[in-house]
Amino acid sequence: MSTVTPPSDRVRVRRKPERGHYDRATVDAILDEAIVGHVGFVVDDQPYVIPTSIWRQGDRLYWHGSSASRMLRATVGARVCITVSRIDALVLARSGFDHSVDYHSAVVLGTAHLVEDDAEKLAALEALVERLYPGRWATLRPPLPKELKATTVMWTELTEASAKIRDIGAHDEPGDETWPTWAGTIPLTTTVGEPIPDEFVPDGMAAPVVTLET
Amino acid sequence: MSTVTPPSDRVRVRRKPERGHYDRATVDAILDEAIVGHVGFVVDDQPYVIPTSIWRQGDRLYWHGSSASRMLRATVGARVCITVSRIDALVLARSGFDHSVDYHSAVVLGTAHLVEDDAEKLAALEALVERLYPGRWATLRPPLPKELKATTVMWTELTEASAKIRDIGAHDEPGDETWPTWAGTIPLTTTVGEPIPDEFVPDGMAAPVVTLET
Repeated sequence: MSTVTPPSDRVRVRRKPERGHYDRATVDAILDEAIVGHVGFVVDDQPYVIPTSIWRQGDRLYWHGSSASRMLRATVGARVCITVSRIDALVLARSGFDHSVDYHSAVVLGTAHLVEDDAEKLAALEALVERLYPGRWATLRPPLPKELKATTVMWTELTEASAKIRDIGAHDEPGDETWPTWAGTIPLTTTVGEPIPDEFVPDGMAAPVVTLET
Repeated sequence: MSTVTPPSDRVRVRRKPERGHYDRATVDAILDEAIVGHVGFVVDDQPYVIPTSIWRQGDRLYWHGSSASRMLRATVGARVCITVSRIDALVLARSGFDHSVDYHSAVVLGTAHLVEDDAEKLAALEALVERLYPGRWATLRPPLPKELKATTVMWTELTEASAKIRDIGAHDEPGDETWPTWAGTIPLTTTVGEPIPDEFVPDGMAAPVVTLET
């Protein structure tokens, strides 16, 4: 169990508290290896959950989208919850009850802020590209003013966040160990495939090397 | 673009409408290959998004958890949004603006219902195990009454759902094709690793074969 105090009761892990972590290093590591987060917001009492690219810079978690997006417009100044999760393994036990998955997840509660300054927006978009493809931003055709205008960038603070990790594999109820069925873990990993160039890439030009922390 | 009419304006895909699909076959296929969904709900005006196992049976989408979970207690009778997503490929263009990902996602809006009948609960839990591990339920130590009591199963209807799919790879703005950087797609896949038996599995007992539809 983490020795760091939960930043709020709302993000305290109540079920299985030993799985809760509140130190920023643990939360940041989970956010930094996620490509996509699930952004939760409320419109007319209806919750919505939208998957979108997320990236962290210091104490801020960013996401972005089209300036025409109703999701982004609806969230400016509103409460959001951004959640990332990764399944590390399927966990098979000898009872249905003890089946599980090993996972890493992080939950961030905050207020959605709009990036209004163009230089800050540009820096955030550069960070989005560089986190996945280090060194790539400098090789790209620079952004046009109309592209920047068509892009909305949002952020929320990382002051109210928690991580939840299950990494203990299979655990049966005492006495179940001799039940004659297989039990254990089956790892799941994300594999980066062979890059597929488009038809304009010159012969011999190397693709970026993508390394995921999974 | 799907020829099926959106079941509501709330789930209509407005941005990039050509990516929207509203036929149940498409929505069901995306739900059926997901292990985890992200359940959004609201408590005291704060949205929460919690990752959890989801599974479909006919016209219902199920999830479950501990009967002591505040998340489950808070959602009974409440509006929920359950979203699943899968990234199929990273998409690299010659401008930052045209970078993207190819993906499949589904969004389900509904009311959270509690499964109160024990036989129905048992059938739902069997379906949860069988979808990932066909034939496994019959090999397990049967559920105990206290285990059933400690497990809460919820469902929502699939009447208001949509899918969103991007599968078009890299597309640059006209004129960018000659910019001297690599562009194309880098596929991401989920790989099922070698099963790791626990210490009680007898020599020679085969592990279940897990096949993910990714």
